[in-house]
Amino acid sequence: MSDLAQVIRNALSERFGESIDVDPDLSGLDELARLAARRVCRHYEAREVPVDTLRLLCACALSAPSKSDLQQADILIVRDAQRRAAIADLMPQMPWLHEAPVFLLFLANGRRTPFIAEQRGKPFPNDHLDLFFNATVDAAIVLATFVRAAEAVGLGCCPISVIRDHIAVVSELVGLPAKVIPIAGMALGWPAEEGALSPRLPLAVTVHEERFDDSGLSREIEAYDRRRAGLKPYRRQRDPARFGEAGFYGWSEDKARQYAVPQRADFGAFVRRQGFRLD
Amino acid sequence: MSDLAQVIRNALSERFGESIDVDPDLSGLDELARLAARRVCRHYEAREVPVDTLRLLCACALSAPSKSDLQQADILIVRDAQRRAAIADLMPQMPWLHEAPVFLLFLANGRRTPFIAEQRGKPFPNDHLDLFFNATVDAAIVLATFVRAAEAVGLGCCPISVIRDHIAVVSELVGLPAKVIPIAGMALGWPAEEGALSPRLPLAVTVHEERFDDSGLSREIEAYDRRRAGLKPYRRQRDPARFGEAGFYGWSEDKARQYAVPQRADFGAFVRRQGFRLD
Repeated sequence: MSDLAQVIRNALSERFGESIDVDPDLSGLDELARLAARRVCRHYEAREVPVDTLRLLCACALSAPSKSDLQQADILIVRDAQRRAAIADLMPQMPWLHEAPVFLLFLANGRRTPFIAEQRGKPFPNDHLDLFFNATVDAAIVLATFVRAAEAVGLGCCPISVIRDHIAVVSELVGLPAKVIPIAGMALGWPAEEGALSPRLPLAVTVHEERFDDSGLSREIEAYDRRRAGLKPYRRQRDPARFGEAGFYGWSEDKARQYAVPQRADFGAFVRRQGFRLD
Repeated sequence: MSDLAQVIRNALSERFGESIDVDPDLSGLDELARLAARRVCRHYEAREVPVDTLRLLCACALSAPSKSDLQQADILIVRDAQRRAAIADLMPQMPWLHEAPVFLLFLANGRRTPFIAEQRGKPFPNDHLDLFFNATVDAAIVLATFVRAAEAVGLGCCPISVIRDHIAVVSELVGLPAKVIPIAGMALGWPAEEGALSPRLPLAVTVHEERFDDSGLSREIEAYDRRRAGLKPYRRQRDPARFGEAGFYGWSEDKARQYAVPQRADFGAFVRRQGFRLD
């Protein structure tokens, strides 16, 4: 028990740069240890994930809470080698995607609720932002719960939000109908590497008590940039031709450069074309 | 081991109405059993959740994956009795909310990324649907991961999406600034009841292989309505004055009636007022 408490303390200390108390008498420390020491996995063994295991993980993920019991999240499993390659080819900056024996799409399904209204002969005066939002949140909850189930059985995974840079092509490849969009993809397989633990902003920034307070944000980000650079320095700077070579290159500089370029400016147009109204 | 496999099989059979194979040699079956047998909790003991435990759970939840490492999700903890009561009073249809010693808000924070751009002297040409979407998905992932951490230590919880029916008042109560919105609340405490297991649509509806296919939807929903009514019948019908008394009242009839009434039609206006652009 106390070994697990120490594993959790060490992982959270590395992740958040602060000491977090762990009561060694808590139950479920094995699960907390997996959560606290969670690592992304981007290299996979050349070994299948059994179909039965995939099905079990999907069932566990879909056991997660769902907004008003509406169940507006779906999972789409891509195992076919050609289709996987076609998806991976869209993201050449992630060549390791080709290693993953399974690619998943987590779908916001805003189609079933209006379908049910029609079947039951009822009006559906809720075709506005709420429908899109609820289905999106449900799908993200299922995604996160899938991560937990997959990592519990020893699989490694990496959520792939970059599919949204190619969302129309990906949606076409798997035949998504109106009012269904992928919120993210996921590479899944048996880990061929330990993967990296992502350092996170301190809890002073992301956990608020009673009232929202980010008054120390500037100072905390500066400290996080420094701490993170010590643990996981960036190998190269983004677009030095445009931004120059920074003397110190931290997380906030990297993220500011990444988002100084328009990203997915057509996302809203795609979502509307797919039949969602965002009023 | 095989006992856990049986617990999982039984829970998933009740949830999905079908038999799902569980390899008893898989690792992490303890965690899968918690996921598979997950129950919502709506009654809590009159006992505090230690502050250190809350902090630990937040740290575990914030160890979850985050879109492009942007970390756009926050957690706001409400323990103050007056503020909790003020929030619970907004939702008199859930009187049990008053029992929960902790109320949490999961926040989509679209404020930090533009803040960083400004701090680093960079333009931010990404103030469109993508910002809102990424922060929302991050927050939902943190919410789902918090559920896993809380249930691992034996706490019970119930996500409260209904706070969005009162989103302006709730946001004001906790002082949310521009570009920060709650995606959902959560009641948290030590369980005073076992809670109910929510039956789910069959995997034939929610899990797709290679291509999206919901061609059997009408038939599957009909069967789910019947199965669910056997396990967890509705105690009363919604709005019989408007819709009449149904001879058979199932899930799809209940959801169709629920969404035959406009819900949160002002949600989009609130999100825009809060400074998000949804183009």
